[in-house]
Amino acid sequence: MIVEMNTGATKEQVDHVVDRAHSLGFEVQLNIGTEKTVVAILGSDTGKTDTDVFAVLPGVQSVSRVMKPYKLASREFHPRASKINVSGVEIGGQRVVIMAGPCAVESEKQLMDTARAVQKLGASVVRGGAFKPRTSPFSFQGLGQDALKMLLKVKSDLGIPVITEVIDIQGIEPVAKHADILPVGARNMQNFALLRELSKLKHPILLKRGLSATVTEWLTAADYLLAQGNRRVILCERGIRTFEDTVRFSLDISSIPVIKQVSHLPVIVDPSHAAGHWAYVPSIAKAAIAAGADGILIEVHPKPEEALVDGLQSLDIPNFERLMKDLRPIAQAVGRYV
Amino acid sequence: MIVEMNTGATKEQVDHVVDRAHSLGFEVQLNIGTEKTVVAILGSDTGKTDTDVFAVLPGVQSVSRVMKPYKLASREFHPRASKINVSGVEIGGQRVVIMAGPCAVESEKQLMDTARAVQKLGASVVRGGAFKPRTSPFSFQGLGQDALKMLLKVKSDLGIPVITEVIDIQGIEPVAKHADILPVGARNMQNFALLRELSKLKHPILLKRGLSATVTEWLTAADYLLAQGNRRVILCERGIRTFEDTVRFSLDISSIPVIKQVSHLPVIVDPSHAAGHWAYVPSIAKAAIAAGADGILIEVHPKPEEALVDGLQSLDIPNFERLMKDLRPIAQAVGRYV
Amino acid sequence: MIVEMNTGATKEQVDHVVDRAHSLGFEVQLNIGTEKTVVAILGSDTGKTDTDVFAVLPGVQSVSRVMKPYKLASREFHPRASKINVSGVEIGGQRVVIMAGPCAVESEKQLMDTARAVQKLGASVVRGGAFKPRTSPFSFQGLGQDALKMLLKVKSDLGIPVITEVIDIQGIEPVAKHADILPVGARNMQNFALLRELSKLKHPILLKRGLSATVTEWLTAADYLLAQGNRRVILCERGIRTFEDTVRFSLDISSIPVIKQVSHLPVIVDPSHAAGHWAYVPSIAKAAIAAGADGILIEVHPKPEEALVDGLQSLDIPNFERLMKDLRPIAQAVGRYV
Amino acid sequence: MIVEMNTGATKEQVDHVVDRAHSLGFEVQLNIGTEKTVVAILGSDTGKTDTDVFAVLPGVQSVSRVMKPYKLASREFHPRASKINVSGVEIGGQRVVIMAGPCAVESEKQLMDTARAVQKLGASVVRGGAFKPRTSPFSFQGLGQDALKMLLKVKSDLGIPVITEVIDIQGIEPVAKHADILPVGARNMQNFALLRELSKLKHPILLKRGLSATVTEWLTAADYLLAQGNRRVILCERGIRTFEDTVRFSLDISSIPVIKQVSHLPVIVDPSHAAGHWAYVPSIAKAAIAAGADGILIEVHPKPEEALVDGLQSLDIPNFERLMKDLRPIAQAVGRYV
Repeated sequence: MIVEMNTGATKEQVDHVVDRAHSLGFEVQLNIGTEKTVVAILGSDTGKTDTDVFAVLPGVQSVSRVMKPYKLASREFHPRASKINVSGVEIGGQRVVIMAGPCAVESEKQLMDTARAVQKLGASVVRGGAFKPRTSPFSFQGLGQDALKMLLKVKSDLGIPVITEVIDIQGIEPVAKHADILPVGARNMQNFALLRELSKLKHPILLKRGLSATVTEWLTAADYLLAQGNRRVILCERGIRTFEDTVRFSLDISSIPVIKQVSHLPVIVDPSHAAGHWAYVPSIAKAAIAAGADGILIEVHPKPEEALVDGLQSLDIPNFERLMKDLRPIAQAVGRYV
Repeated sequence: MIVEMNTGATKEQVDHVVDRAHSLGFEVQLNIGTEKTVVAILGSDTGKTDTDVFAVLPGVQSVSRVMKPYKLASREFHPRASKINVSGVEIGGQRVVIMAGPCAVESEKQLMDTARAVQKLGASVVRGGAFKPRTSPFSFQGLGQDALKMLLKVKSDLGIPVITEVIDIQGIEPVAKHADILPVGARNMQNFALLRELSKLKHPILLKRGLSATVTEWLTAADYLLAQGNRRVILCERGIRTFEDTVRFSLDISSIPVIKQVSHLPVIVDPSHAAGHWAYVPSIAKAAIAAGADGILIEVHPKPEEALVDGLQSLDIPNFERLMKDLRPIAQAVGRYV
Repeated sequence: MIVEMNTGATKEQVDHVVDRAHSLGFEVQLNIGTEKTVVAILGSDTGKTDTDVFAVLPGVQSVSRVMKPYKLASREFHPRASKINVSGVEIGGQRVVIMAGPCAVESEKQLMDTARAVQKLGASVVRGGAFKPRTSPFSFQGLGQDALKMLLKVKSDLGIPVITEVIDIQGIEPVAKHADILPVGARNMQNFALLRELSKLKHPILLKRGLSATVTEWLTAADYLLAQGNRRVILCERGIRTFEDTVRFSLDISSIPVIKQVSHLPVIVDPSHAAGHWAYVPSIAKAAIAAGADGILIEVHPKPEEALVDGLQSLDIPNFERLMKDLRPIAQAVGRYV
Repeated sequence: MIVEMNTGATKEQVDHVVDRAHSLGFEVQLNIGTEKTVVAILGSDTGKTDTDVFAVLPGVQSVSRVMKPYKLASREFHPRASKINVSGVEIGGQRVVIMAGPCAVESEKQLMDTARAVQKLGASVVRGGAFKPRTSPFSFQGLGQDALKMLLKVKSDLGIPVITEVIDIQGIEPVAKHADILPVGARNMQNFALLRELSKLKHPILLKRGLSATVTEWLTAADYLLAQGNRRVILCERGIRTFEDTVRFSLDISSIPVIKQVSHLPVIVDPSHAAGHWAYVPSIAKAAIAAGADGILIEVHPKPEEALVDGLQSLDIPNFERLMKDLRPIAQAVGRYV
């Protein structure tokens, strides 16, 4: 950590900073310039210390980090890319994994029809929401427990892993019993109590990026999942909040190469929630794979017009088929396959 | 809701929209222009219907809302401003309410010293965090249950209401037993499961704005709290995420007159979390009251240098005293008092 | 345009809105609901009228647009995609056009070496800044007129078109004499005086997106370029300002499918300015082509370490060679070629 | 500047950084930690050097600034607050200066009526747009030269200084001949060619903040105005672009205390352009003065309903009168007067 003193800071003020650093077990090195003094705080654990600890001291102008605040999710901690096995499907390997299905499970028929169709077209995981966190209390909130049973039936009948969001601590047990991957939604990315409980499981967790979380905050939240032993964490970029209003969220395509450089965790992309409109989904999905994403999480509905939730962003089966056909050569172009 | 058809949309496509509206119990009025057809969907409940229901239909170019998606929090629903009584302190009345105390409770002495000091200087509610949601799992997470007991002691010894954050459903019962106001933190603003439980209580709930929530989303989240009978909802603006990097969050001062116009709920301001630095807190607090805020939630620590959490944004007692002196004439200038 | 009246708006207030609409030559249709009246303003030119004209009237709650504010840049106005010929290079056609070269021209040797190298590797346009708009007045501001001469030499020696930014009205004439494409920088996107002058030229203009411009504002700015007869307008997405801090700007990948749908203008992508770091450039470039961009504008420098401007975001020749090799299969995968 | 090397960076790479620093005339100090080496680059001019100069070198992980990139606008350079005299009106002194008038000059009568009214009510500067930069080429662009003459008449008849925007280099001479203060609009904040010319004048320049400019970029742009001798620079906060959609721009209230701390330049606030709606203007204006702003730039129109530009954000005369009455006690509360 680098502590910059004010111009004219006194020797006592500088000593105070040095003492504080020593009391925390850090070493310091002083750069006494003609205009101002700069104190470098050294030690392998400075990333875990708040910058405020020094910023609050008298005479200090600013404090900047050198070490990142996340550790377990960093590539420095774990130099090789993590590959995560989900009931036989490897995420982070050479295959680009397609997870597809309806936003919300609406009926056994709707789910089973979609699951069969997407499996046949090449998807290796089926998605379907059981509990739906909705902006308004007056909107459809999901079929809950009944949906979980339908997902389990898909899994046993079709032999394909399923993924369904866990929205609170109460939901962990039932969801973990029925699903193969447990996604944490964007609005829960910093629901630390939930993360802490999920960290005790062995299930793969898919951590969606908060809609205004920086990459650094996202990886620091991943540290919560990794902190108590769960090693199977997958990141999911789903768009960030910006001023642009032609899409629901702006997919942050640069986050993919950034994460590949600073973290060992696999990262997939959800083009459906980002775009908010099915017409933009194929372009974003293709871009994501070209940029290096390890998979795509995509909404497919047999009749988007009749969907209870997010029909506008769902592909129908023929459009999904076309997309799968289009994704194959893109994956090949980057040395992978779908 | 206004549905704009594509140029060249067919009569069948228009009829489809009309049928869908009728099936939902709405009336429609058609505007058949030379270039394009526009369908107005009419009815008092259109605000509760997703725009996607129509946007997904073939031939539709865009759908825009006329009715707001929130209802119970709106001034149209409840034209008079709500005043909320918290153990004798009225929020939303003529008095500007000052809630002050440490970010985190660190010890009984620290809490009691701060509480006595801020009460003497004019604060009418004492704040103090028991459970701290922290960005990194390696940071101090609060004293928990012990802190709750210390808050209860403050309340009984000093006769002043206390406020402490509830961070998950498990925490509702213990917090509700000890505290007078239950704040929902910014990162939980759309934790709908938590909101739904809190809606069943009679306690006043302070709903902090999510760091990237629009005013409309914030009020729609307030609808969750109001939906099951709790009428005592207070809003708290605490800064939004922008690109500006000299402060932690940019306090959205315009949200105050906007809320006063569109909602009946009282709104207070947290300048400490917004600024992230104590030096900017007094200006923002003064601005908030001048703009019409009903109160201020402010961090005060007897020794900010030694604070375990957020010391940088805490005022020490002499600075808090100075601020209280400065706030009085501002409150008077807008026809209120501190 | 849709004008929503307040609940309880009087008949006189509604009549006032209707009269105003008639006075502007529009037709109206009234939707008198049980709760509120909605006035639809109809006519093919409503897109050119400010919503404020109605929003300011008494009794009006809100006004929303149905027509877009841009016209000449819209696909409704010009349904077929525009292809723009630049000295024999077609932009918007089947070939994905690569424009490459140094951020700033530093010397004849630096420019000529880079130009030869990128041409040999497949670039069809050479870029090089002559006038550099810099954030600080103390930074290197470009070689100006001398750089223009060097660009002309590249053009005549190598027979390749060149592109160099025009930063003010004074610069139009000299730049137009030497360069084949005139880019307008992000910070000038709404420099309307400059756009108006450029609209009188026949040269192709590359309109970079303002760093906080919405797609709608960007296309409305393109209308300025098209308004006086210049038909050769190319759009360039170069990242938008968001809260994310691991890159300089967040490339808005969704803007590509959005523009392809709402506009007929070709759109290229500048991954170098967006990323701000060369290591992220290849991923973003690949994503852009996969998403449907018509070209890439990329910074290449023979010795990035010694660059006077933006060395960090420049690829060196071997990295550019690798990228060109990687882009070919991506272009093929989307039915195009590099 | 602090250069952090990668874990495992070689001695050659570190030496390369050191050599580069020496070649630029800087001193260095090495912090060789167990995990990584950190190089501190020291010297009073490091603020003027791009961080990229070091970031581009092999083995470098990141570079962070200690010195700010602006110099002339900083309070370290000029510790006392600047007061700027405009034809007898002091900006930055104890009086809070009110500048009021129509967004655009529409006729001599409209301007003169407004000017007389606002002067009588306490405004000390009259505003009125002659050249209007408009988002769409089809919107009213201002009366130009004729408006300048009307402004000059106001100035000579009423003895009050006038302020009108300069939108391009061509406009500097005519505007400088007629107006007392020359504002640079938000969209021109980084039009460096324009700033450079304005820096040669003696006229006070009002530099509006770019709609997505950080405070640091804004002050660095001010350095352009100060670089060639013009000392009379006034800053104007007018809202920044965020995701919030109930207002046109989000007024950044925190920027006022931040600027007061880091810069010596006076700062005023434009609540009209920020809010975009007259109903929110009074609250924001009051907040601005409470936060420490040196003045308010406000749009007033005798008949907002008939305004050609921005009528929605203009106060009519009775509302302006009410606001002036409300601002007086706020100014007093912060030890100033209107």
